[in-house]
Amino acid sequence: MEEFDFIRSIKPDFYRQSSVVKGIGDDAAIVRHTNKDIITTVDTMVENVHFSSKTTEPFHIGYRALAANISDIAAMGGMPTSYVVSIAIPDSWSADELQEIYHGMDDLAKVFNMDLIGGDTVSGEQLVLSITVLGTVLKGKARYRSDAQEHDIIFVTGTLGDAACGLHILLNASQTDREKYRYFIDRHRMPMPRVSFINQCEAIKRLSLNDISDGIANEANEIAVASDKTLLIEYNKVPSHPQLSNFSSEQQFNWMLSGGEDFELIGTVSEKDWEQLETIAMKTNTKISAIGTVRNDLKKNGTVWLQHNHESNRLKKSGYTHLRR
Amino acid sequence: MEEFDFIRSIKPDFYRQSSVVKGIGDDAAIVRHTNKDIITTVDTMVENVHFSSKTTEPFHIGYRALAANISDIAAMGGMPTSYVVSIAIPDSWSADELQEIYHGMDDLAKVFNMDLIGGDTVSGEQLVLSITVLGTVLKGKARYRSDAQEHDIIFVTGTLGDAACGLHILLNASQTDREKYRYFIDRHRMPMPRVSFINQCEAIKRLSLNDISDGIANEANEIAVASDKTLLIEYNKVPSHPQLSNFSSEQQFNWMLSGGEDFELIGTVSEKDWEQLETIAMKTNTKISAIGTVRNDLKKNGTVWLQHNHESNRLKKSGYTHLRR
Repeated sequence: MEEFDFIRSIKPDFYRQSSVVKGIGDDAAIVRHTNKDIITTVDTMVENVHFSSKTTEPFHIGYRALAANISDIAAMGGMPTSYVVSIAIPDSWSADELQEIYHGMDDLAKVFNMDLIGGDTVSGEQLVLSITVLGTVLKGKARYRSDAQEHDIIFVTGTLGDAACGLHILLNASQTDREKYRYFIDRHRMPMPRVSFINQCEAIKRLSLNDISDGIANEANEIAVASDKTLLIEYNKVPSHPQLSNFSSEQQFNWMLSGGEDFELIGTVSEKDWEQLETIAMKTNTKISAIGTVRNDLKKNGTVWLQHNHESNRLKKSGYTHLRR
Repeated sequence: MEEFDFIRSIKPDFYRQSSVVKGIGDDAAIVRHTNKDIITTVDTMVENVHFSSKTTEPFHIGYRALAANISDIAAMGGMPTSYVVSIAIPDSWSADELQEIYHGMDDLAKVFNMDLIGGDTVSGEQLVLSITVLGTVLKGKARYRSDAQEHDIIFVTGTLGDAACGLHILLNASQTDREKYRYFIDRHRMPMPRVSFINQCEAIKRLSLNDISDGIANEANEIAVASDKTLLIEYNKVPSHPQLSNFSSEQQFNWMLSGGEDFELIGTVSEKDWEQLETIAMKTNTKISAIGTVRNDLKKNGTVWLQHNHESNRLKKSGYTHLRR
């Protein structure tokens, strides 16, 4: 398939957002967001680094890559609106498989009324999918990692370790177990970013916020460093799915703290706003859990401490980094 | 080098634009552009597809990739403001080489007061550099390919075929010839998008516009199709650098019409505005040339015709497409 035929095949027939002034088909796309701040983020997934075609269907490659980006927009307190896709494609991929990647993206985009507004399609030796998402947030209302304050309650949405468990099942389990643990596989393949919850939080004046892409060990440290505070987390309060208890304590521990790719949110909120946050969570059908508190301890600020088995130990960034050299 | 050290090494010390609300260092970047439309475009360069390390230094990989994006913003009539970079990096690349890529981008970004506001850095088997640029344009003032009208004058900026000639020199010429044809090599390595010219054109009510990334054979056809008009181009009016005449007629013909990567602009303007366009070109030190006219010929609309050697022949899209399957 020629590039132009392929682009025609993925070009939307209409745009969902009235903010799209010009979509695909000129030198660049144009969007109009009056009186809003613009959020932008890029996330890249590489074959055999971030996913393997053994465990991931083309549809889920697209879905998950877009989910990772939307989750970053949610973690800024924003609404995703549109996305552009750069894809490097090896000859071995069929046009059908490529279209499935775009279907996966569109399936999630639909949920948030988002539009594909542009992209670049090139040849490469390895599939590299890079998505840039645009979103909006009310002027000056973005949520930062740096906004944690002393006495804040640390919270997370959903349950943690699900996606890592799902990947483990896909890599190791029998067909029977795959059926038994379908929930985890789905959480790995089709994570749902917490956009609707966070967008109901507008009335809450201050939240520090981060999305869980590498595991809370990593993201809690990012909040601790950015806010220059000490985060105390109680391991037994970290929420997990009931079925996770079927796995070893070590697996549970690793997946919940460093598993990553759950695309839940971790944040901090003042004690007085906690009840309001719980109400919003209930309204948006979102599980939230208080997992610890923020301290201002000059000797420890910038670090995270985990209380587990009557001990308190430093929880270092253990989320893996993709670039090692 | 770990990912975080690398990001620290390329993170700007300050942001040039006051529009940057939040740059690198949170889940996403935030920019504020009050009362402007937002332009966005992505362009991806792959090692051994779009460049070879034989002919292109890391500095120029970065420079040229950003230039291609900025050129798309210019072709919408806009001002580039910021960019995010996704890069997949093979182990064989050193940290120094990577930093040179970013230096190359920054060297051009400086010219337009642009900021690097985010990115993603991942491992890959092949260098894939994908840049998304954001820009702004006054509300409703974007320039489209579809705005050509009957009797318009077709114009191009600069001289054409320079970059293709430069690449030819790099691939084939002796050291002596490399020095002799330094101009073409520079045009290949460090093209300068026509931002300042196009931003002085605000007073001109209507322009159709496209940037020359694949060669005017391609881009003129895009205007013809989008505007549903017939474009007549006179070959002897297509501007070239004097030194290009040292090459064969066939080379000149191919480079000027399908060479690509000059990142000049092709557009159409009404006859009555031509003089004003010439004045703006002079003020901004931009060469512009009238190379033909727009016709409304129902039987030929959507096509381009080249007058050459007393013949008129259809000029098809001959710019190469990166994806062939």
